[in-house]
Amino acid sequence: MIAHPCFRVEPWALHETNLHLDLLAQTESLFALANGHLGLRGNLDEGEPHGLPGSYLDGVYELRPVRYAEPQYGSPEAGQTLVNVTDGKIVRLLVDDEPFDVRYGELLSHDRLLDLRAGTLTRTVQWRSPARRTVRVVSTRLVSFTQRAIAAVVYEVEPLDGPADVVVQSELVANEPLPAASGDPRAGGAAGASFVGEGHWTQGARAVLVHRTRQSGLRVAAAMDHEVAGTPRMWTSAEASEDSARFMVTDVLAPGQKLRLVKFLAYGWSETRSVPALDDQVVAALEAARGSGWDGLRAEQRAYLDDFWSRADVELRGDPELQQAIRFALFHVLQAAARAEQRGIPAKGLTGTGYDGHSFWDTETFILPVLTYTVPEAAADALAWRRSILGAAEQRAREFGLAGAAFPWRTIHGEECSGYWPAGTAAFHVNADIADAVIRFVDVTGDREFERTVGLDILVATARLWRSLGHHDLQGHFRIDGVTGPDEYSAIADNNVYTNLMARRNLVEAAAACERHQERARALGVTPEEMAGWRAAGERMFLPFDARLGVHPQAEGFTDHEAWDFASTRPDQYPLMFHFPYFDLYRKQVVKQPDLVLAMQLCPDEFTPEQKARNFDYYERITVRDSSLAACTEAVLAAEVGEPRLALDYAAEAALMDLEDLERNARDGLHIASLAGAWIALVNGFGGLRDHGRTLSFAPRLPEGIASLTFSILHRGVCLKVEVNERAAIYRVTRGSGEVRVLHHGEPIVLSGAAPVERAIPDLPTRPPSVQPPGRAPARRSPGSTRE
Amino acid sequence: MIAHPCFRVEPWALHETNLHLDLLAQTESLFALANGHLGLRGNLDEGEPHGLPGSYLDGVYELRPVRYAEPQYGSPEAGQTLVNVTDGKIVRLLVDDEPFDVRYGELLSHDRLLDLRAGTLTRTVQWRSPARRTVRVVSTRLVSFTQRAIAAVVYEVEPLDGPADVVVQSELVANEPLPAASGDPRAGGAAGASFVGEGHWTQGARAVLVHRTRQSGLRVAAAMDHEVAGTPRMWTSAEASEDSARFMVTDVLAPGQKLRLVKFLAYGWSETRSVPALDDQVVAALEAARGSGWDGLRAEQRAYLDDFWSRADVELRGDPELQQAIRFALFHVLQAAARAEQRGIPAKGLTGTGYDGHSFWDTETFILPVLTYTVPEAAADALAWRRSILGAAEQRAREFGLAGAAFPWRTIHGEECSGYWPAGTAAFHVNADIADAVIRFVDVTGDREFERTVGLDILVATARLWRSLGHHDLQGHFRIDGVTGPDEYSAIADNNVYTNLMARRNLVEAAAACERHQERARALGVTPEEMAGWRAAGERMFLPFDARLGVHPQAEGFTDHEAWDFASTRPDQYPLMFHFPYFDLYRKQVVKQPDLVLAMQLCPDEFTPEQKARNFDYYERITVRDSSLAACTEAVLAAEVGEPRLALDYAAEAALMDLEDLERNARDGLHIASLAGAWIALVNGFGGLRDHGRTLSFAPRLPEGIASLTFSILHRGVCLKVEVNERAAIYRVTRGSGEVRVLHHGEPIVLSGAAPVERAIPDLPTRPPSVQPPGRAPARRSPGSTRE
Repeated sequence: MIAHPCFRVEPWALHETNLHLDLLAQTESLFALANGHLGLRGNLDEGEPHGLPGSYLDGVYELRPVRYAEPQYGSPEAGQTLVNVTDGKIVRLLVDDEPFDVRYGELLSHDRLLDLRAGTLTRTVQWRSPARRTVRVVSTRLVSFTQRAIAAVVYEVEPLDGPADVVVQSELVANEPLPAASGDPRAGGAAGASFVGEGHWTQGARAVLVHRTRQSGLRVAAAMDHEVAGTPRMWTSAEASEDSARFMVTDVLAPGQKLRLVKFLAYGWSETRSVPALDDQVVAALEAARGSGWDGLRAEQRAYLDDFWSRADVELRGDPELQQAIRFALFHVLQAAARAEQRGIPAKGLTGTGYDGHSFWDTETFILPVLTYTVPEAAADALAWRRSILGAAEQRAREFGLAGAAFPWRTIHGEECSGYWPAGTAAFHVNADIADAVIRFVDVTGDREFERTVGLDILVATARLWRSLGHHDLQGHFRIDGVTGPDEYSAIADNNVYTNLMARRNLVEAAAACERHQERARALGVTPEEMAGWRAAGERMFLPFDARLGVHPQAEGFTDHEAWDFASTRPDQYPLMFHFPYFDLYRKQVVKQPDLVLAMQLCPDEFTPEQKARNFDYYERITVRDSSLAACTEAVLAAEVGEPRLALDYAAEAALMDLEDLERNARDGLHIASLAGAWIALVNGFGGLRDHGRTLSFAPRLPEGIASLTFSILHRGVCLKVEVNERAAIYRVTRGSGEVRVLHHGEPIVLSGAAPVERAIPDLPTRPPSVQPPGRAPARRSPGSTRE
Repeated sequence: MIAHPCFRVEPWALHETNLHLDLLAQTESLFALANGHLGLRGNLDEGEPHGLPGSYLDGVYELRPVRYAEPQYGSPEAGQTLVNVTDGKIVRLLVDDEPFDVRYGELLSHDRLLDLRAGTLTRTVQWRSPARRTVRVVSTRLVSFTQRAIAAVVYEVEPLDGPADVVVQSELVANEPLPAASGDPRAGGAAGASFVGEGHWTQGARAVLVHRTRQSGLRVAAAMDHEVAGTPRMWTSAEASEDSARFMVTDVLAPGQKLRLVKFLAYGWSETRSVPALDDQVVAALEAARGSGWDGLRAEQRAYLDDFWSRADVELRGDPELQQAIRFALFHVLQAAARAEQRGIPAKGLTGTGYDGHSFWDTETFILPVLTYTVPEAAADALAWRRSILGAAEQRAREFGLAGAAFPWRTIHGEECSGYWPAGTAAFHVNADIADAVIRFVDVTGDREFERTVGLDILVATARLWRSLGHHDLQGHFRIDGVTGPDEYSAIADNNVYTNLMARRNLVEAAAACERHQERARALGVTPEEMAGWRAAGERMFLPFDARLGVHPQAEGFTDHEAWDFASTRPDQYPLMFHFPYFDLYRKQVVKQPDLVLAMQLCPDEFTPEQKARNFDYYERITVRDSSLAACTEAVLAAEVGEPRLALDYAAEAALMDLEDLERNARDGLHIASLAGAWIALVNGFGGLRDHGRTLSFAPRLPEGIASLTFSILHRGVCLKVEVNERAAIYRVTRGSGEVRVLHHGEPIVLSGAAPVERAIPDLPTRPPSVQPPGRAPARRSPGSTRE
C-alpha cells in the first residue's frame, strides 16, 4: 500500500497526501492510535464514510454462542469477541446547510500524517461544499500514553472564500451500525449493537454514557468534555440519550476566522464497579486531562515517545522505506502494549477486530521479545496478565485430565475460544512459549522478584502440564504425542521438534527457578521428586532426526510424507487453506510458517551449524508463508546460515506486511506480531542477537544495500547500543553502568562505561542460495525498489 | 431390556406382556416394522403417549445448514436429515366420551407381540375408561415385504362390560410435533414441521395428502383407504385438510359386538414426479393392496418370510435368549434392507432418526456380508445405490484434489454430511469397504454381469482414489498418510494397517476385474499402465510392524503412544468420548472399536496365527467397545484365536445390543450393523466362515453352553447348510446343485447333491485368557443367565 503514490516515504511519519476511499479500511488500521488500553481506528472525524468504525478497550469483549456441526467434549461453548465500544472520535461539521462529507462536494486536498515522534494523527482538508463554500478543516488526534483513559482531538474549521455558518457536533455514539462480516475466517465478527444503556448525562460541555455488554456483563463508561474558541457569536448546547450524546457549537465565521474545539475523551470499564463509580472515574480522568490541557497532553506524549525512541529506535541507512517501516512497526508495537497493564495484547492490537481481538502465542513469541528489550515494563504486564488467567488455564487442564495449566490458544478473558481443536487447543506449544517469555524476561532484566511473584507460578504450572502431557517410552525417551506445532499446515503429530525443545526448556528452567525460590516453590507444592521428574523428562526428551536425509523432521514421520505438488498449485490458490482441505495439507510436506526453523532460532544451541544449514534448505523448499508470522523467522535463519540477501527480502516482507497489505487483511487490523517481527528480523537477524545462552551473543552482518544498522537493547539495567556497518560492529553502553559481557561472533567482549568496543565482522562463507516453492520466494529487495 | 420381566423369551417372537411407559421409546424401536423402503416405528395406534413418533421413507431427507465455529475449505455446508413423513399409523378411539389413552382410565392388560415369521406386530389391550367402560382393542400392523409402498392395520374394538358408543378415527397426520432433541450427538435431529402441503383429497373411505420438503424439494404422497365392518348402526365420514386427513367410523356396540377397521396405507415419493403422478401412484398401490385384502397381504408376508427363514435362519440350541436375539436381529436386518432398492441402508435402518438416518461404512462392512449370504438381491441393490452416488463421490474427490471417487462418510443422498472431518472424510477406508463388499458379492454370487455393470465402476473409482491418496516413498513403499481407520479413538494417522490392507485388496482386485472386463475398463479410461500402477502400489503397500513387541501397531507409531490410564477411569466415564476430549483419546493407546482386529478378520491371510494371537491379546487390553460395532468383530477373533467362551460373551453382546439397550440409545433406533454383527459373530465366529480366499473356508467350533449351531449361506447358486455340534460339523447342500468345495479347518471337502459330509472338529489348543480393560470385559454368558 505504501507503494501507492498517495503515500510518502518519510523517516518519522506515515504520510498520506490524498484520500483514496478504496484504501479506507486499510488506512483506518494503519492510522489507528492506541496506548494498549484504549484504541481508536483512524476513522475520519465525521464518522462516514468508513471501512470499519472502531473504538476498543483492551479486555472489553462480548460472549457469543459457538455452534458445532458435531459437538464434542471439551469444545468451548462460548466465544469472546472484542467489542466496538462507544465511539468518541466523532466530530461532525455542517457548513451552511451542507454536512461535511468527503463523498459530496469537492475535496480540494486531503492529507493525513501519523507522526511517530509526536504520537499524533493530523488531518488537513480543504473541501468545497456542494453549495460552493470552501473550508479548511484541521484535526489532530491523540491517544495518550501518559493518561491511559484519555484521548483528545483538536478540531479547527475555517472558511476560505466567504463567510459560513458552521455547526460542529462532537459526539459519543454507542451501538454504531457495523458493516456485515466479510466471510474471511480471520476477520472475526465484531459484536455490534450489544450495548445496553445504563445511564446518560450532560453537564455543561461534558457528557457521559454508561453501557453494559449484554452477555459478558462488562460496564463501560465513555465521557467527553470540550473547550471551544470561536467568535463572539458562537453558542453551544449539549444533549444526551441512551446511545448518543452530542455537544454542538454553532458559529458564523468570516474568512480568517476559526472555530476551534478541543475534545477530551475518557473511557473506563469494569467487571464489578457500579454505574456511579464508573461515572466518577471517567469524569475524574476528564478533569485531569483538562488540567493538562491539549498542549500539556501533547507535550507529555512527545516526552514519552522521546524516551521510547531514545532506547528503542532502530536506525537503518541505505533503505529509507525499510527505515520508515521499522519505526512504524515499533510505534504500533508500543501502541499495542504500552498501557495494557495486565490485560492481553491482541494479535491485532487495538487496531481492528481481526481474529476477534484474541491474544495468541504471537504475544509471547514475537511481541514480548521486542518489548523485553525495549519496554520491559510492558512485557512484565503482559506476563502478569498470563498469571492472572492461570485459574482458567488450570481449569482447562483439569478438563483435559492434565496437570498444571493449559493456556488457551486464543482468548480475551482467559477461557479457550478456539472452535477447532486440532489447530487450537492441540497447539500446546503456547504453554512453552509463555514459559519461554518468562525465562527470557527474567534473564534479560535480571528481575528475580518478578520471577518469584509472577514467573514461578507460570513456570511450575506449565512444567506440570508437560510432565503430564508427555510420557517416557520403553527406551526411556520422553515423548509428546499428538500435538500441533507452530506450523498450521500440520496437526496432531508425534514429537514435534519445536514443541519438544521448548517443553524441555520449560521443564528444566522450571526446576532451576524452583531451586532459586524454594519457599515459593514449596508453597506451590513442588517437591524435589517432582523437580527431578521435570529434569529427567527434559534430559530424555525425544528429538526425531532423519538420518537418511540428514535433517530434522518437523515432527516424527514428517519427512516420509508426500511432497506437496507445488508445480500444480496455481498462484491464486494461496493461501492454501482457502483452497485445499486441512486433510490434504496436514498429510503432506508443506509448511505454512516456520516450525523447525523457529526451533532453530529459539533453541540455537540444539543444532549444529551444518544441521541448521541443511534444515533451512530443506524447509525453505516447502514453506509457503501463508502466515504473517513466517517472514521474520526465515529472515533470522537466512541471516544465520549465510544468506543475507534473502534475509533482507524476508525482513522487508515482515516490516511491510501491513503497509503493503501483503496478507490482504490489514483492513481488519494490523499484524502486530509481524511488525514486532520486523525488529526481530533486523536485531536477531542482521544483529545476530541470541539469548537463552549464558552470555548474550551477537553475530552481526549486514546484507548488501544496508549501509548501517543501529539498535539498542536494555539488558540488566544498562542500555546497550550496537552499531553495525559493512565491516565492523561497535558496541557501547548508553545508559546505566556496570560491566556487560557479550559475544561477538563467538568472541567474548566486555563493555564497561560508555567506551565503545569495535570488532570486525568475519568474512561470509559463500553457500548456494536456498530455493523456495515456485512463486513463493519473497519479493526481491533491491536499492532500486526504494522511492524517496 | 429383554431382561425386564415384561418381556418373554420366545423363539420366534418379541413379546411384551405389560406396558412400561419408561421403556416406550426403546420399544418403539424394537417393535418397528419396515421393508427397507417404508418404516413405521412401533408407536401406539392412538399416537400418544410416544417416545418418538416415526414414519420414514428411505431416502426422504431434509437439508439443514451446518454451522462451524471456524469454517474451513471442504466442510459440508448442508446436512441431510431423515424426515418424519406423514404419519399413517394413527388410529384413535373414543369410547363413549372418553378418548382411549393408556395414561388415563385403567389399563387392565397390554400385550404386544412382534411375530418374526408372520412379519406382524399385534397389540391386545383391555382398557377401562375413566367412565368405567371396559373395551378390548386388538390391532395388527404390517409393513409389506411384497408390496413395498404398502402398510396395513387391522383394528378391532369390542366392549366387554356393557354397550358403548365408539368412534374410531383413522388418520394421516403431517408435520407431527416432535420431542426436543436430546443433546446426545448420536441421536440426530429429525427435521420436524418442514413439510409444505401441496394437496389433500378424500374420496369415500380414501384420503390422500401430498407434501413437499421445504429445502430438499422432495414430494411425498401418503394415502389411506379403509374397509369397515360393524353393526347396522355404523356410519362413516371422511375429511382432509393440509396437514391432516381423517376417516371416522361411528358405531354403538353391545358386548359381543365388534367394530373392525382395515386400514391400507400407501406411500410414494419422488424428486421429479408431479403431484397428480404421485397421487395416481399411491392410489394405484392402495387399489392393489385392497385387491389382496388384509388376508392376502398377510399371506404374502408369511410366504415371503418363510422363504427367507428357510435359507437364512440360524438355529442355536442351548441358549434360548440368544436364539431369540439372533432371529430378532436377522428380522431387523431384513427389514432394513429388503426393499431399499437402490437407496442407502441407514445405520438405524428405518427404526428411528439416530445418526440423522445416514448410511455409513456399517452397511458394507457389517450388513452386506449378511445380506450377501442370505438376501443377495438386497446386497446388490445396496451396492447399486453406491454406484448411483458415484457422481457425488467423484465430485468430492475432485474437491480434495484426488482422483477417482471419495465416498461420503455419512450421507443419505450422496453428499458428504460429516461436520467433523478427522472422524469423517479422513476415514477414507469407507471406500475400500465398499470395494470389499463388491468383491465379496461377486465372489459369493459369481455374478460377473453385476461386476461388469455395477462393480467395475466402483472398483475403478476407488482404486484411483487410493493410488492418488497414497504415494511411494524413497524405499518404494506405498504409504497412506494422515487418514483415520475404523477406530474412532484415533485419527489422522499414517499407515493404518486396516486401511492399507483393504486398499491393497481394492487396488489389486480392481486390476483383476479390469482384466476380466476389458471393454468396460477401456470405456472407463483404464489403461494397462494404470492397472500396473495399482498392482505396484498394492504389492508395495507399507504395513508397519513393531518388532519389539511382536505386534502390529494399528497405525504407524501407535504402540509408542502413552497407555490410557484405565485404572483412573471411572465406570461412569464410558463412553469415553463424552468425558474426554478427542485430543486425549487420539494420542493414547485406547481403542473404541476393533481396527487392527477387524483387519485380521477381513484379511485373515495377511497375519500368521501367532501374530493373530499376539495382536488379539494386545488390543483386547486397550479396547473399550464404546461403539456398537465392536463386539461382533471381537467375537470372531476370540473364536479364531481359541477363546470360544469370550467369543460367546461378545456374540451375546452384539445380539443383545438393542434388546438390552447396551448403548442406551435404542430409543433413537436400532443398531442394524450390530444386529448383523450377531450373525457375523455366530457364522464367522463359531462357524469360522472366511471368504476372499480361493476357497470358502470354515473352522467351526462351539463354545461351552451352545449345544448346536445351524446356519445356511447362499453360495454361487446353492444353499449350503452347516450344522455344528460339540464334536463335528455336518455340511450339506439344501438347494441348487453342482459341486461345492470348501475347507473345514483347512481340510478340503467336496459337497455334491444333498449328501451330508460330516467332519470332526479338531481339539482346541488351550491358551491363557486375554484381558480387557477394567470393567470393560463383556458380560459373562452362562447357561444360568438365561430365562425361559
